[in-house]
Amino acid sequence: MALSKTGAVSRIAAVIGLGSMGMGMALSLKRAGLDVLGADISKDAVARFVEAGGRAVTDLAEDVRHADIVVSVVVNAAQTEGVLFGPAGIAETMRPGAVFVSSATMDPAIARRLAAQLEAKGVHYLDAPISGGAARAAKGELTIMASGTPAAFAVARPALDAMATKVYELGDSAGFGAAFKMINQLLAGVHIAAACEAITLAAKQGLDLAKVYEVITASAGNSWMFENRIPHVLAGDYTPLSAVDIFVKDLGIIQDMARSERYPVPLSAAALQMYLAASGAGMGRDDDSSLARIYAQLSGATLPEKAE
Amino acid sequence: MALSKTGAVSRIAAVIGLGSMGMGMALSLKRAGLDVLGADISKDAVARFVEAGGRAVTDLAEDVRHADIVVSVVVNAAQTEGVLFGPAGIAETMRPGAVFVSSATMDPAIARRLAAQLEAKGVHYLDAPISGGAARAAKGELTIMASGTPAAFAVARPALDAMATKVYELGDSAGFGAAFKMINQLLAGVHIAAACEAITLAAKQGLDLAKVYEVITASAGNSWMFENRIPHVLAGDYTPLSAVDIFVKDLGIIQDMARSERYPVPLSAAALQMYLAASGAGMGRDDDSSLARIYAQLSGATLPEKAE
Repeated sequence: MALSKTGAVSRIAAVIGLGSMGMGMALSLKRAGLDVLGADISKDAVARFVEAGGRAVTDLAEDVRHADIVVSVVVNAAQTEGVLFGPAGIAETMRPGAVFVSSATMDPAIARRLAAQLEAKGVHYLDAPISGGAARAAKGELTIMASGTPAAFAVARPALDAMATKVYELGDSAGFGAAFKMINQLLAGVHIAAACEAITLAAKQGLDLAKVYEVITASAGNSWMFENRIPHVLAGDYTPLSAVDIFVKDLGIIQDMARSERYPVPLSAAALQMYLAASGAGMGRDDDSSLARIYAQLSGATLPEKAE
Repeated sequence: MALSKTGAVSRIAAVIGLGSMGMGMALSLKRAGLDVLGADISKDAVARFVEAGGRAVTDLAEDVRHADIVVSVVVNAAQTEGVLFGPAGIAETMRPGAVFVSSATMDPAIARRLAAQLEAKGVHYLDAPISGGAARAAKGELTIMASGTPAAFAVARPALDAMATKVYELGDSAGFGAAFKMINQLLAGVHIAAACEAITLAAKQGLDLAKVYEVITASAGNSWMFENRIPHVLAGDYTPLSAVDIFVKDLGIIQDMARSERYPVPLSAAALQMYLAASGAGMGRDDDSSLARIYAQLSGATLPEKAE
């Protein structure tokens, strides 16, 4: 806790990872009145956060001693493990009773292991994957798929409420949040690939693609992803709103999870191959609708080009 | 044209195929004031239609001489070709200027060929696949994805308006309607398979499936098919609303089309394998959400059972 200028007590939160999602989440926490420390390996990102009124972490492991809530917005399980248990990891210095809010998408089994290791030190772990994208992160309007002990939820609550409009409470231990997020990512990843397979087949057949969009979005073939991503293809604009490599990662996690559980995932496996093809062809950091360009390259179909 | 009892001129329509879709379409035509002849290989279906006030065809090739509009609601391209050009086919006896409205889902190349053969005899061909299911067919609320000459549309118009609330006009020759329908079926078929892959993986992980449904339908992983079909899995009720074998057929057409165009469809191909597995396991006439039962059998996951 810290005493603010007005004498009110404000909670101290640290946000680790100030990328497009983390920056918005950190600023949402600030806006809600928390005292927010920001950490990132990019000095530019930290400088932008300080300009926006945030405080820069100087020594993460030391600075988190004062934090009630640490929100980790790193890329994957390995980085999450590094933040907690790597050299200069914060598991040793977080104070007992504080909560670590983990937002990276990961295998539920890893979330359970990290939670157990951290809880053994008296620190709460909230398994809290996010969805909604950068624009909603900036507005504090994310969806959070969370699971953890009632105590973890209680300590994290002011941060959850500041960052999200919808917080699903999916179970009383870590792993459920991660599992729900993986189910969503399986569907999202397959639906983007299916949308690209379909729209490029339509192009190959010479159909009016704007009309295809109109008909499909009003029909039983529609998906949230078709509706959201196909406009990028129609505009020929592959500026990354969400990158191909996100699904290389997330469908990769699905493959690993499913393999270890002896669960066959033929649809996800086929989709992953298309993301790998796009990434291998140099489009890993382009928008995930770039799978349409791979289908076009493989088949000689012609897709719309970006207007100058 | 026929003179009705009140002296008004009513168009004569013939409906070939009085299954769950065709019966509803025929009755919608009657309700709209057309004089409707019904034909089906099942005598029971014809008897039901006569009970409902329709007229039974006695000799199809003879009776269609008087029809302005023939609506074909058979299963596939082969049956459509049989109706037109088989022994006792109606292509020879339909009167010039009448229109053949073809609603079976088929390869666009076949639709183009059938249209050219029929148009050579002076008969119009409207390529008019339908979607919406039996309940909407009965109410005259289908969606029709149609293409054909302006003359074909003009002659068919009273029937289209009677059968559908939404008629897409997708091009001025046959083939476009079929192509749009195939794009929709590609997506619909992949989305059902993905929904079953995801919900059964969730079951395998011990997640609360009702909660999965709640979270996914509010998230980016949603699809029209997930939202529509997963309640069948949650209820353990595989009474066929739309059968597995429909997608064995439709994704089969996609495979053939895509192969002949040298267009790779890895997602559709993976999905087709799952429909084949379900059909091969004896579930071909069960609801298409039965793919979830195949995933469960393959992985040992436990799905909800139907309440007694």
